[in-house]
Amino acid sequence: MFSSCEKLFSETQQNIVEALSALDIKDFISDKWQRPDISGGHGGGGLSRILKNGNIFEQAGVNFSSVEGNLPLEMSQKLVGSDNIERFRATGVSLVIHPYSPMVPTVHANFRFLEVGNKSWFGGGLDLTPYYLFEEDAIHFHRTIKSVCDRHDSSYYPDFKTQCDNYFYLPHRKETRGIGGIFFDYLGRDSNTDLNTYSQLVEELCSCFIPAYLPIVKKRKEEVWGESEKSFQLIRRGRYVEFNLLYDRGTLFGLKTGGRVESILMSLPPQVRWEYDYKPSQDSREADLIELLKNPKDWA
Amino acid sequence: MFSSCEKLFSETQQNIVEALSALDIKDFISDKWQRPDISGGHGGGGLSRILKNGNIFEQAGVNFSSVEGNLPLEMSQKLVGSDNIERFRATGVSLVIHPYSPMVPTVHANFRFLEVGNKSWFGGGLDLTPYYLFEEDAIHFHRTIKSVCDRHDSSYYPDFKTQCDNYFYLPHRKETRGIGGIFFDYLGRDSNTDLNTYSQLVEELCSCFIPAYLPIVKKRKEEVWGESEKSFQLIRRGRYVEFNLLYDRGTLFGLKTGGRVESILMSLPPQVRWEYDYKPSQDSREADLIELLKNPKDWA
Repeated sequence: MFSSCEKLFSETQQNIVEALSALDIKDFISDKWQRPDISGGHGGGGLSRILKNGNIFEQAGVNFSSVEGNLPLEMSQKLVGSDNIERFRATGVSLVIHPYSPMVPTVHANFRFLEVGNKSWFGGGLDLTPYYLFEEDAIHFHRTIKSVCDRHDSSYYPDFKTQCDNYFYLPHRKETRGIGGIFFDYLGRDSNTDLNTYSQLVEELCSCFIPAYLPIVKKRKEEVWGESEKSFQLIRRGRYVEFNLLYDRGTLFGLKTGGRVESILMSLPPQVRWEYDYKPSQDSREADLIELLKNPKDWA
Repeated sequence: MFSSCEKLFSETQQNIVEALSALDIKDFISDKWQRPDISGGHGGGGLSRILKNGNIFEQAGVNFSSVEGNLPLEMSQKLVGSDNIERFRATGVSLVIHPYSPMVPTVHANFRFLEVGNKSWFGGGLDLTPYYLFEEDAIHFHRTIKSVCDRHDSSYYPDFKTQCDNYFYLPHRKETRGIGGIFFDYLGRDSNTDLNTYSQLVEELCSCFIPAYLPIVKKRKEEVWGESEKSFQLIRRGRYVEFNLLYDRGTLFGLKTGGRVESILMSLPPQVRWEYDYKPSQDSREADLIELLKNPKDWA
């Protein structure tokens, strides 16, 4: 299962890089990296693909990784309830795209397969973070994902959608990071269901990233915006940073297990603003967005 | 002890605000806030003083707070080894100053007094984060603090200096946040020394912020800089954000105990950049700084 997942995630990376590059008319650079295993031996590695200062994308990073090592005790306990330092292997594809225009939403996707001790599972999801909301885009994004989930089990989408809203939540701001999508973790870890059932689902979700996101980029990249919209985008990007550094499981897991810092923090937006006590004006589009993030909606 | 600390920290805030305001020729705004106590009853509050878009300071925030409430179990265990949710009271003054010019260092200071259950202690410190290093400034900052510490106990400065280098350390970057200063915590919690001994030290440290920092601002505010220096400052500010959101005890304590978000995150710089795989050119001033952050030096 591990090597077929590696192949899937690596191909997914390649397909997405090609699609984004064609749209932006700019090439990605490649950074191949190896992970030093602190415990000695082979630690695995990965391939980071980055597009910087593109025509549409201010920064797009698409990572593939396949790493292994010893899992710190604290994480071994948390993940598989073990009182020993366990060996782990993890492979995944992970992307974050920060468009330059505040009218084009930021997107994040991640699919991963983990083996810890004698347990293994899938995790991942994809979610959208608009700065200015176009309802039809939110509907398109959610419906595209739902239709994939529904082919497998009609309980998946509502379950994963709720998990996404719960996961991408900033308690200190009392708002979600964006308008969500799906999120799942530990899929197959504690059940007797054949892992192949889940791998089929994950494969189809990998394929649905392009049809879920790219039509939105194409539709919104020519929208007009000015300084005020840009400024709002930069402030909202600050919330994105807060989520990733304070709460994101993948970021904290990566940093704690000696992952490659540049590939992990590639998720952070290139330009960001914090403004003390920022409040949007009443009844503005900015206020509408924040209202929505406080009350997640059923888009599909 | 608690009310005399409140008075000290509140007066310290006022003195520092006046000194910074006179130098910047711009007024601070005042935000008085109350803290809702989730457990019911009086939660305390504070006063935030902010200067935004000043002539020298892009953002300067000086907070006073005096709060109380129930301490989450996890924190009660960690702070006083208790298996019960303990009551706590905390009062402190806390400041972060982000100058506009990359030639003027960012500074942070915090002094606090905590009571949890039947224990109480002081914590705090002050530390400097330059973007371009002027050795004489680093020496001035450290010596000013050392001379205060030495009046009390010659072991304090070397001890607190080491604690500062250890505390303001980003393991994932393998570098310190800045060139340090002093940091101490749990002062008086586990010893039989009279708390008054420590309160005298803290009072003098509160008074030494102005002579430690302001002469550096006055000296460096006219230094010439350009786009490239500004860009380096914005990237280094990203490291500042990483430290505060990933590791800073005060930030995480505040967010977990329902503190006022705007006053806590006021420490984050107004403008920030992340650049994938940034590396300074060899033998540049930027490379020198990073080298120094990887190998803390004895400045006093």
